[in-house]
Amino acid sequence: MTTHPVLIDGQWKASAGKKTFQAVNPATTEPLPGDYPVSPWSEVEEAINAAARAAEIVRGWSGSRFAEFLEEYVKRVEQRAPELIAMANLETGLPVVPRLQDVEMPRTTNQLRQGAKAARDGSWVEATIDTASNIRSMFGPIGPVAVFGPNNFPFAFNGIVGGDFVAAVAAGNPVIAKGHSSHPSTTRLFAEIAHQAAEATGMPAGFVQLIYRTEHSDGVKLVSHHSLGAIGYTGARSAGVVLKEAADKVGKPIYLELSSINPVYFLPGALSERVTACAEQFSTSCLMAVGQFCTNPGLIFTIAGPNTEAFISQVTEKFAAAPVGTLLSEGVQKNLHSGIQTLVRAGAKLLTGGSLGGGKGFCCQNTLLRVTGEQFVRSPDLLQTEAFGNSSLIVVAANEAELLAASRCLEGNLTGSVYSANDGSDDALYQQITTILRQKVGRLLNDKMPTGVAVVPSMNHGGPFPATGHPGFTAVGIPSSIKRFAMLQCYDNVRPQRLPPSLQNKNPTGSLWRRIDGTWSQADVPTPAT
Amino acid sequence: MTTHPVLIDGQWKASAGKKTFQAVNPATTEPLPGDYPVSPWSEVEEAINAAARAAEIVRGWSGSRFAEFLEEYVKRVEQRAPELIAMANLETGLPVVPRLQDVEMPRTTNQLRQGAKAARDGSWVEATIDTASNIRSMFGPIGPVAVFGPNNFPFAFNGIVGGDFVAAVAAGNPVIAKGHSSHPSTTRLFAEIAHQAAEATGMPAGFVQLIYRTEHSDGVKLVSHHSLGAIGYTGARSAGVVLKEAADKVGKPIYLELSSINPVYFLPGALSERVTACAEQFSTSCLMAVGQFCTNPGLIFTIAGPNTEAFISQVTEKFAAAPVGTLLSEGVQKNLHSGIQTLVRAGAKLLTGGSLGGGKGFCCQNTLLRVTGEQFVRSPDLLQTEAFGNSSLIVVAANEAELLAASRCLEGNLTGSVYSANDGSDDALYQQITTILRQKVGRLLNDKMPTGVAVVPSMNHGGPFPATGHPGFTAVGIPSSIKRFAMLQCYDNVRPQRLPPSLQNKNPTGSLWRRIDGTWSQADVPTPAT
Repeated sequence: MTTHPVLIDGQWKASAGKKTFQAVNPATTEPLPGDYPVSPWSEVEEAINAAARAAEIVRGWSGSRFAEFLEEYVKRVEQRAPELIAMANLETGLPVVPRLQDVEMPRTTNQLRQGAKAARDGSWVEATIDTASNIRSMFGPIGPVAVFGPNNFPFAFNGIVGGDFVAAVAAGNPVIAKGHSSHPSTTRLFAEIAHQAAEATGMPAGFVQLIYRTEHSDGVKLVSHHSLGAIGYTGARSAGVVLKEAADKVGKPIYLELSSINPVYFLPGALSERVTACAEQFSTSCLMAVGQFCTNPGLIFTIAGPNTEAFISQVTEKFAAAPVGTLLSEGVQKNLHSGIQTLVRAGAKLLTGGSLGGGKGFCCQNTLLRVTGEQFVRSPDLLQTEAFGNSSLIVVAANEAELLAASRCLEGNLTGSVYSANDGSDDALYQQITTILRQKVGRLLNDKMPTGVAVVPSMNHGGPFPATGHPGFTAVGIPSSIKRFAMLQCYDNVRPQRLPPSLQNKNPTGSLWRRIDGTWSQADVPTPAT
Repeated sequence: MTTHPVLIDGQWKASAGKKTFQAVNPATTEPLPGDYPVSPWSEVEEAINAAARAAEIVRGWSGSRFAEFLEEYVKRVEQRAPELIAMANLETGLPVVPRLQDVEMPRTTNQLRQGAKAARDGSWVEATIDTASNIRSMFGPIGPVAVFGPNNFPFAFNGIVGGDFVAAVAAGNPVIAKGHSSHPSTTRLFAEIAHQAAEATGMPAGFVQLIYRTEHSDGVKLVSHHSLGAIGYTGARSAGVVLKEAADKVGKPIYLELSSINPVYFLPGALSERVTACAEQFSTSCLMAVGQFCTNPGLIFTIAGPNTEAFISQVTEKFAAAPVGTLLSEGVQKNLHSGIQTLVRAGAKLLTGGSLGGGKGFCCQNTLLRVTGEQFVRSPDLLQTEAFGNSSLIVVAANEAELLAASRCLEGNLTGSVYSANDGSDDALYQQITTILRQKVGRLLNDKMPTGVAVVPSMNHGGPFPATGHPGFTAVGIPSSIKRFAMLQCYDNVRPQRLPPSLQNKNPTGSLWRRIDGTWSQADVPTPAT
């Protein structure tokens, strides 16, 4: 069997790597056809150099050039959608319906279109013009971006087509995609399409590149290479912090999405008013996609009482009765099981599940655990161990004070949700909780589970460490996510004809939003009467 | 002699530290009166805990509360300006006129006023509202900020009154200021005033705190403490990277200003047209404040030729003839001399200066060095050694290609300036240079020296590492610098009355700029007809 080539410098090239790997069908646990290479450092460096050349060529191009590429790409993705969906289903076990076809593919093409629109519009650069001093600034491309995609979104977060890819390209940067080892063929298909779209729209060689895997030490060298602009990484915390350390050391911005257990509070009044709805919403959210979402509700906060016991008992029944889904990979199965065991060793009591098996292929029983608030406060680190998958830990605090104390122990998370009474009886407690919680989560929700992530400008899919590496940025939401891959570029006394069009007196599109002398405006820069 | 107390948790308290230090008058090299404590860890932790309590109290306060504090502070600073100026002159050797009184004090009070205005206006939070999904987000305070001030701006970058302090407070955060050891009495006076202003405006204890010095290991513990929100650091690269590593490890945003040699290009046509003006502007800029600016032009690029020789000869004469100024401290003197020696060892030829002495107190001769472009390309790391002070290195490239090759070797810098011909003869070369240079500097200038840093919204006092730790942020310029000390906070389905005023349907001030459904607006959120 021949080994699949890598996409470097505008060519599909046989890899120089000697080692290979295969994807595994998680539903059958059998290997899938196709050998994929582990690229040696020489190949990674070739990609970096090609990306650096490409970055220099496209520097100064208008946003519409990047928009044209993204538009061509999305058109071709849609043409080959059935093939992509079938392949992702084989490699990830995620269902075609309702997931890959109905939700993830539309989200992915929507992101590509939003990215194209933002690049064409250009307002994301936040052009700022001060006329008295003749100083002007805007965000501009940061340089080649390496994107490490995760296992759980073969489309929407894939390094060669997902949110980070779109944001990096919309900012005007070449991308070096590092495919996830669990779905290389899906990634390969996207790379084929991206390459064709790049050629069709005149992008330089090296603008989109793909490698499938590297040695860990070469990943470290990649993210700290002087020619790289920035890094996007979504995946395991263990590997992420190693890359972060290497990138930080040389001051390369690295945007990570690492670990989040997404606390959900069910306050007493909410459970008193609508315990069944609460149990239903939580169970559905937690078991959706076998719990393999970054925003999966892995930690539930309650206060002891009969309604809480009713809630726990209903949820336990639902977890026990629900079919056990197939996990993405053997690695996910292993980490989930090990996470559950860590929680048990830390004192959590198993309410249901906890063992491997129960379904098809790689799987683990739907698992629910329980601890007291006092236990949580005593072992906050261990009891915040992420058990990524269909598992959740319920904390039952003895009283409000214990709930607040437990809340103070929370690490950073992507989301925090609070279900409270409609009659206002939880409002005082809500206020106390959110004063603490607001600083610990990127997105605060009311009466809603966190698993839906709308791709809108106001979305924050981010949060304090270890949820991400910097609480000022979001990985989802356009145009805001684009700024991660941009640097602030100021022009001081630069001659008018040398300014980028976005900073010239004339509004280049007639609709570009700019901050002129402190006021947001779509007008030209006023020129004083001579 | 009694040791000065530290300002912790709203009280001036005797330090528990056994070690003390004294400031030194750099003009006389004699110690100044006053013993200042090295705070032990227990004291630092006390400050962190007090700041965390203060942060919780002020969370949710409107921007006008922080504006009131800043306005009260600036009023009191102006009342005590003569005393502050006299003290800073003693401690830093910086002249009262034209520096401390005429430039730095007005800049500092201007920053305080701009910060107050931005906090009151509130538009810096970039409120973003999507009505269809009812998701809303804004930037909010990140939590207690530790500010490490540098030696070279006793007012404008001082940890208790300078740009980082203003930005952190305008964002709604308590500040723990770490004073610079070379001007503790100036810092103490500011802290007295800040404390009085905080009390007068009802800020909680622990909102403004001051420690003078810590052990290095305690500085590391401070920046990585779980209760800290972010860090601002301006100073030496050696200490900065140690703090950066510690903060990065736990995902605390740390904004650094470390090292920048600010390349200035004099293209052939510019020297042909106006060699004398070029020599004059460069010499004045480089020797201003004895070269102790972050934006000091420490690296000059030229192409070999008779005009370049004329330029070098004029500049050499000016450097040799100009009076030698007093440096900020013995440490600055030592580092400058050692930097010059490193450059000489790396092959740079001394044109003038190079030795200690020549003026009053701590000082070093005005120094000019020269290398070829070929040498620079061969030893780019050593030849980019920062010699902070009245020294600059001129690179003479043999031709355009060598100039471009040398440009590619540049590290990140705050600024890059290009002087070019008015008749267009340098334009092609300008284009080639700036394609490279644009990615390596935060601020690109034309026909202008980089030493002036206007405090305007479009300013970028930032740039790629090692100039700073992240090229997406600026330390100067309001409101942009405020965002460094904020986190992105999203509200998903949060009940209307629980939203921060900036995100409620009604525009809270009537003039707040918000991005509503993609459009910047000062209006209320339109409510659909029922």
